[in-house]
Amino acid sequence: MNNNINHNKIIKDAYLESINNKRYGDKKEELLSIQNKILNAKKIIIATNNKKKFNIINNILISIFKNYNKPVPNIKKLNINTNSVDLTRLPAINKGLIAVDISDADIVIARGRLGAPGSGSMLIIMDNKGRCLSASLSPTSLIHKKDIGDAVKDELNEALERIGINIGI
Amino acid sequence: MNNNINHNKIIKDAYLESINNKRYGDKKEELLSIQNKILNAKKIIIATNNKKKFNIINNILISIFKNYNKPVPNIKKLNINTNSVDLTRLPAINKGLIAVDISDADIVIARGRLGAPGSGSMLIIMDNKGRCLSASLSPTSLIHKKDIGDAVKDELNEALERIGINIGI
Repeated sequence: MNNNINHNKIIKDAYLESINNKRYGDKKEELLSIQNKILNAKKIIIATNNKKKFNIINNILISIFKNYNKPVPNIKKLNINTNSVDLTRLPAINKGLIAVDISDADIVIARGRLGAPGSGSMLIIMDNKGRCLSASLSPTSLIHKKDIGDAVKDELNEALERIGINIGI
Repeated sequence: MNNNINHNKIIKDAYLESINNKRYGDKKEELLSIQNKILNAKKIIIATNNKKKFNIINNILISIFKNYNKPVPNIKKLNINTNSVDLTRLPAINKGLIAVDISDADIVIARGRLGAPGSGSMLIIMDNKGRCLSASLSPTSLIHKKDIGDAVKDELNEALERIGINIGI
């Protein structure tokens, strides 16, 4: 809980900087707080019904927590049909929010379409309130021609690396 | 206008596929429709107050339209303070929506923070209704250490390439 209170305080400070026209980009403590939230998660929901994608993300997560000498969290699939998000403006984000709303996960990882049909895919990492901590994008599969397993692995890797978490595999 | 009607029809078809559980990823006509919307824009708003970032994006856009033998659109900055978006969940997306709401642009290009403070940046390409056509992400500047000019150039390049538009420079 301390972790959460601290994260809220860091966000409030950033908001005050913006209001006061004194915001000059991301700060180290903000980055550390995001890393902290992810690496101290007790429960992670992966918002996908696809067993193959779940297994890939699950295995990467397990190796990260081991690399960082952190207890491996409880990692679960989201067992609900999420087709409806593809009728919204931001499918991947809304898929993540469904997981936030119906679970008690500390961290949600969702993958889905970025925006309009044809806009390719997004993997997003959210916290327990639905705040976006990181993300990554892939071109539409019409362009990248990657195996879905490789695509998901690269996306999770990229989403974590851009906030300084090294997957180490 | 025909262009818009056709785009709406393509989106409706994709929505019907999702409802009927018959959606199997992006389709070629969806991608072409997105490319079409961007390359036939008459007016583009770049949602930034930063002159350097504006000039970089402006110059890249001019060369793309020339490469594709398309008339160069009217490209303008968004002249309003957008600090307020940094107090929202999705700053870059909300910055783009401000431009959609207060201009008559066919295409909006916005750059800002992806999500929570510390989450790095996002460049997003939206249409006249605020639908997300493409995007790209950069790590937080604490990690990438790129010159801001190079970062913006790479982001625009990536956002266009992932939907099959080649900037050719």
